[in-house]
Amino acid sequence: MTASSALLTDRYEITMLQAALRDGTADRQCVFEVFARRLAGGRRFGVVAGTGRLLEEIESFRFGDDELDYLEQHGAIDERTRRWLADYRFTGTITGYREGELYFPGSPVLTVEGTFAEAVVLETLVLSILNYDSAVATAAARMAIAAGDRPLAEMGSRRAHERSAVAAARAAHIAGFGATSNLEAGRTWGIPTMGTAAHAWTLLHDSEEEAFRSQIDALGVDTTLLVDTYDITEGVATAVRVAGPGLGGVRIDSGDLPTVAADVRAQLDDLGAHGTRITVTSDLDEYAIAALAASPVDAYGVGTSLVTGSGTPTAGMVYKLVARQNDDGSWLSVTKASADKVSHGGRKSAFRVLANGTASEEVVVVSDGFEPLDTPAEHPDARPLQTELFTAGGPVADWTGAAGVRAAREHHARVIEEMPVRALALSRSEPAIPTVYRDAD
Amino acid sequence: MTASSALLTDRYEITMLQAALRDGTADRQCVFEVFARRLAGGRRFGVVAGTGRLLEEIESFRFGDDELDYLEQHGAIDERTRRWLADYRFTGTITGYREGELYFPGSPVLTVEGTFAEAVVLETLVLSILNYDSAVATAAARMAIAAGDRPLAEMGSRRAHERSAVAAARAAHIAGFGATSNLEAGRTWGIPTMGTAAHAWTLLHDSEEEAFRSQIDALGVDTTLLVDTYDITEGVATAVRVAGPGLGGVRIDSGDLPTVAADVRAQLDDLGAHGTRITVTSDLDEYAIAALAASPVDAYGVGTSLVTGSGTPTAGMVYKLVARQNDDGSWLSVTKASADKVSHGGRKSAFRVLANGTASEEVVVVSDGFEPLDTPAEHPDARPLQTELFTAGGPVADWTGAAGVRAAREHHARVIEEMPVRALALSRSEPAIPTVYRDAD
Repeated sequence: MTASSALLTDRYEITMLQAALRDGTADRQCVFEVFARRLAGGRRFGVVAGTGRLLEEIESFRFGDDELDYLEQHGAIDERTRRWLADYRFTGTITGYREGELYFPGSPVLTVEGTFAEAVVLETLVLSILNYDSAVATAAARMAIAAGDRPLAEMGSRRAHERSAVAAARAAHIAGFGATSNLEAGRTWGIPTMGTAAHAWTLLHDSEEEAFRSQIDALGVDTTLLVDTYDITEGVATAVRVAGPGLGGVRIDSGDLPTVAADVRAQLDDLGAHGTRITVTSDLDEYAIAALAASPVDAYGVGTSLVTGSGTPTAGMVYKLVARQNDDGSWLSVTKASADKVSHGGRKSAFRVLANGTASEEVVVVSDGFEPLDTPAEHPDARPLQTELFTAGGPVADWTGAAGVRAAREHHARVIEEMPVRALALSRSEPAIPTVYRDAD
Repeated sequence: MTASSALLTDRYEITMLQAALRDGTADRQCVFEVFARRLAGGRRFGVVAGTGRLLEEIESFRFGDDELDYLEQHGAIDERTRRWLADYRFTGTITGYREGELYFPGSPVLTVEGTFAEAVVLETLVLSILNYDSAVATAAARMAIAAGDRPLAEMGSRRAHERSAVAAARAAHIAGFGATSNLEAGRTWGIPTMGTAAHAWTLLHDSEEEAFRSQIDALGVDTTLLVDTYDITEGVATAVRVAGPGLGGVRIDSGDLPTVAADVRAQLDDLGAHGTRITVTSDLDEYAIAALAASPVDAYGVGTSLVTGSGTPTAGMVYKLVARQNDDGSWLSVTKASADKVSHGGRKSAFRVLANGTASEEVVVVSDGFEPLDTPAEHPDARPLQTELFTAGGPVADWTGAAGVRAAREHHARVIEEMPVRALALSRSEPAIPTVYRDAD
């Protein structure tokens, strides 16, 4: 693994760059747009995530000697392309939806403007980050809806690539999860971390009682004891015997959760442990969480389904050239014409129309030009959805680092409140609000 | 992103470590085992992948001041645990299935032996890598079966986290893909890379003809032209007009592929371009590839479904304590007892039983002891499945780097040939061979 992000790139981008440097089109000003043609998995909304990570990775998108030597030795670049890449630094502008914002089919989530050469090479990096992080954030938002006021913890690192796991923890936090088990996510993004013990802890000791006693000695009675290594009823009895009725919590990682949770709550109450919390962690997804709404569960830990997007492991966003300058300086909208992949050419501005505080339409205004567009006259109160993300050779600082994660989490919490009630159901459906295209002027 | 892999770890591992250092169990010798309880997605076999990557990441599993300061400042460790982690280096042994090998439910894919303290902290890293890479390799192997002799290229980077994408390219290559679009996978793992042009290339130019002419000027007539930006029939006609009948190939990325491929082949043949290859790349998975078996397609490019495990984005392997030493030095098999998650305690040795060269059983021999077990007497020709992977403080060099990838690819090609015909069908099923447990003695 290397720190440069420059080779996290599909080879065809470098091939196109080289051919464009040769035929003189490399410097044509272009507008590339990131959007999703549909919401994969019958989702009612998507959640934009990854933006802050992306802005930082674009900063490290530099071709050093190692990268250039590899490309040259494998015949991927000629001398002229090598010189161009050696000086590469994205000098264009990136605007887009704020991280944490909701999106719908056709929403212009990200707009990258610059020369063809400088913008085309970012395609793979942009899509990798936005597609994975947005898929996780969207799943997380659905789980947060299902959980209501009960806290959610992300603990899926083991079911995702080791670096995806860090991004997943970050995306989940933006979309409503309070904490993660992943320590690198804690360090890099300032997310609260949690975790006490695995079954191995109990198995390591000569008895469950010894394991519990040692854990309480080390962590205090407010810790959470994992009670299902052997028999849950005995485990709960042992836990309260060792910790007393002030035990912080028990965790259940197996069994038929509605039944088990009810039994454990009754047992804890019988033992006087009325304040002991029940955390469940066994193969949860948004549907299982919803099914536990009436059960005496205090907190959820979610793993596999979260980090794999709960059936939709990638958001399906694409990076498309939508406008470019002609040699005479005029702008031309462009789009692929094939029947099964509808796209809208042209630069877009996007607004969310609200009626009495509730979102009703995603309005996308299309133009041939290069300038940002005004709020549509018929919806003067519509909320503009795009903001500057990368200008003057660097990311806008508000959106990066741990501060960017906090801002995205707050923004998401605000905008999910704007959604109509139908957005909050979990079943497959059409998008919660329609995307309406309008021509500028 | 940082080079140390030490914080790619669930916090509970550090919590258990700290409590074990306190209660004296930290130095108990333990055997942890990685296995899958079932083959997710109704797969007939799984493919082990990620092993070589894992061995390298264990080498970089070191706690420097940055990692230790973070943990201490966030209350995750005390002073004693800090000192222990500062000196951390895995000194135990890891044995397991060779990378590229097939596995079945209960196969002891990896066995980690060492003190509780040194082995418990590796859980998340081990599982993250093996679960993701094996899910991709398993999907890739199914696609390779469906493709038969036709070449497969991996081009899914944009639909996976940017670093997962590199691992996915690696796993796909091990399981039969010939090339990848991902440049970092080419550099890091020595995998052949490929790629010519996107739709943006055509849209950048004033006409499709100009785009094709420029690409051929840059890359020669043996290149592959993307012919579906506008009208495919016109695109093919333009491609052959510009390149001549010696055109290397055309790529089709949309439409009803069986129909389109047949039409394009007929058109190419009419134009005398009998040698021009047809590559298809539109939303393929193993089923779509199988459905194209009778179509005149020369090569497949696979993206989304490959890097997301074709419906099974994680392999579901677990890392379980299966045996530990008592204070008197005797060994004890241990296992979690809950009803819905069956595990077998004890150290395991595994063998593939072959009848006339065809695999018939996965034999797993269980013992309480620490020593490797002999081939079962009733199957003297059974193939032992485990080998040393990490010994004497470092990885076995045969399994790391680009050489490790090559060895894994060759091994996979060999062992897939041993499978009975029923292993090669794509529909959901029981595992192709049964796992049979035997007691040692």
